[in-house]
Amino acid sequence: MVKMVLGGAQMGPIQKADSREAVVARMMELMRQAHAQGVEFLVYPELCLTTFFPRWYAEDISEFDHYFETEMPNAATQPLFDLARECGMGFTFGYAELTPDGHHYNTSVIVDRAGEIVLTYRKTHLPGHAEYDPERTHQHLEKRYFEPGDTGFGVVRSDGMVMGMAICNDRRWPETFRVLGLQGVELVTIGYNTPSQNSQSGDEGLEKRLYHSELSVTAGAYQNSTYVASIAKAGTEDGHHLMGGSILVDPDGFVIARATTEEDELITAEMDTERCAFGKSTVFNFAAHRRIEHYGLIASQTGAKAPE
Amino acid sequence: MVKMVLGGAQMGPIQKADSREAVVARMMELMRQAHAQGVEFLVYPELCLTTFFPRWYAEDISEFDHYFETEMPNAATQPLFDLARECGMGFTFGYAELTPDGHHYNTSVIVDRAGEIVLTYRKTHLPGHAEYDPERTHQHLEKRYFEPGDTGFGVVRSDGMVMGMAICNDRRWPETFRVLGLQGVELVTIGYNTPSQNSQSGDEGLEKRLYHSELSVTAGAYQNSTYVASIAKAGTEDGHHLMGGSILVDPDGFVIARATTEEDELITAEMDTERCAFGKSTVFNFAAHRRIEHYGLIASQTGAKAPE
Repeated sequence: MVKMVLGGAQMGPIQKADSREAVVARMMELMRQAHAQGVEFLVYPELCLTTFFPRWYAEDISEFDHYFETEMPNAATQPLFDLARECGMGFTFGYAELTPDGHHYNTSVIVDRAGEIVLTYRKTHLPGHAEYDPERTHQHLEKRYFEPGDTGFGVVRSDGMVMGMAICNDRRWPETFRVLGLQGVELVTIGYNTPSQNSQSGDEGLEKRLYHSELSVTAGAYQNSTYVASIAKAGTEDGHHLMGGSILVDPDGFVIARATTEEDELITAEMDTERCAFGKSTVFNFAAHRRIEHYGLIASQTGAKAPE
Repeated sequence: MVKMVLGGAQMGPIQKADSREAVVARMMELMRQAHAQGVEFLVYPELCLTTFFPRWYAEDISEFDHYFETEMPNAATQPLFDLARECGMGFTFGYAELTPDGHHYNTSVIVDRAGEIVLTYRKTHLPGHAEYDPERTHQHLEKRYFEPGDTGFGVVRSDGMVMGMAICNDRRWPETFRVLGLQGVELVTIGYNTPSQNSQSGDEGLEKRLYHSELSVTAGAYQNSTYVASIAKAGTEDGHHLMGGSILVDPDGFVIARATTEEDELITAEMDTERCAFGKSTVFNFAAHRRIEHYGLIASQTGAKAPE
């Protein structure tokens, strides 16, 4: 059980020209603000060391390898790890990972208060497409640059609570929250880079996309009696707009902190993991109420099959 | 594909003293109103022929067998089936079912425009408890009077669309919507009897319960690109208050019709199953995006197991 201040570090845009060192300096400034406000765990967004490069097409994907990290921490991020240890603060952030054996993942890590990486997660639900699509208003080539994650949704008990991660599009899938919920998760951290316009529908702009994001996250929190931190990289990157709308959500599914800008912005809220216990022991007492004999299709059939 | 007017027939309270014939007369009045407004499919609530009897304890459960139906249609409900066929209207409603071999279920049926029962569903997620619980402000003995349903979440293609059912507490479980979504559902019908106060928490009253109900239903609609009709039996039954809040929801997760009373009340909205296609073929194209290799726990582990 832990009672503490949770922080979300929304990041404003990162331009193509921005160095990792400049970005890490911004992250450290947010961490200092968070420390001053008593934050003990801080959540940064997805792919938060660089611009959101999957919006551009490269014939040869290795042309974009410079957006990837080959080790973590590395020279650019070590100062962030050092500052966190100094502050006694745990944190999580996302980055593009290139493994020694050549695999590309959209990855996030949880770092404990002692500065150790205690959990690594590789994004499961890659949105978008793998080939250039002239029908779209803009490209979203995550399926080109990344492989689907091989970690699944793990959790770690660290610094007094059970934590798990999801990344961006994962939050729209209730399977994400449920697999974490079945492992007793008390805090789900999510980072995202979400274009404010659907590339395939002029009818789906900022307002609708903010609604869908919040709907998915609040439902996931309520239905698994867990805190959730859902944190954006926001604003206009190299002419492409990303939505903000970072929120912290309590185990009842209520928003308890909300970003109001599209810039670097700290949001904070008190959390108490004891508040997860009521839901987990009553309406969402899984052992008492779930009926797995009727859930088979979920884990055995990928696509939808309608009757004739 | 079908474009039509969908109706939700919220029911006000049914007292212990009310006869089935009196209730069916109210249902028929709502059906006539619906027909006058061009409704082609009408959704009634859970257990809508009697008062919500699981609020009372009976030592011998057969004392309550008089609340159950042993055949459907029967003498009391035949006039409703006849009127629907006359109107060319499909409909669904819930009732307590006692089978010839002595099983008790919380059941609903879909009846097509020709007056035939084309799908039967027996409630999967029974809430509450099986024994008298003096700790609660009121009893919720569904686990005493009913067995968990043996049907699972099936769908039927009928009158031009793919339909499936859920009952009350089922709506809080994303597994419900996903199993239906994996069968291409375009309309999920839900009936409920939900006490406006949590029997185990003074902190959870009407406002919070309406929020949780709507949150679960709108998320289920969005995440499966389906219409949902979620229809209450509402008001004060024999001194016990049930919440209202009946809604019709579109495949984007937006509420398109909402009841404003706790009485018999018809709500209607245009629906067009073609609107389900966009989500089902893009962000929720299950075949393209789902990763069942990471969903195993959902169908293999009933209760939550947190790490040490």
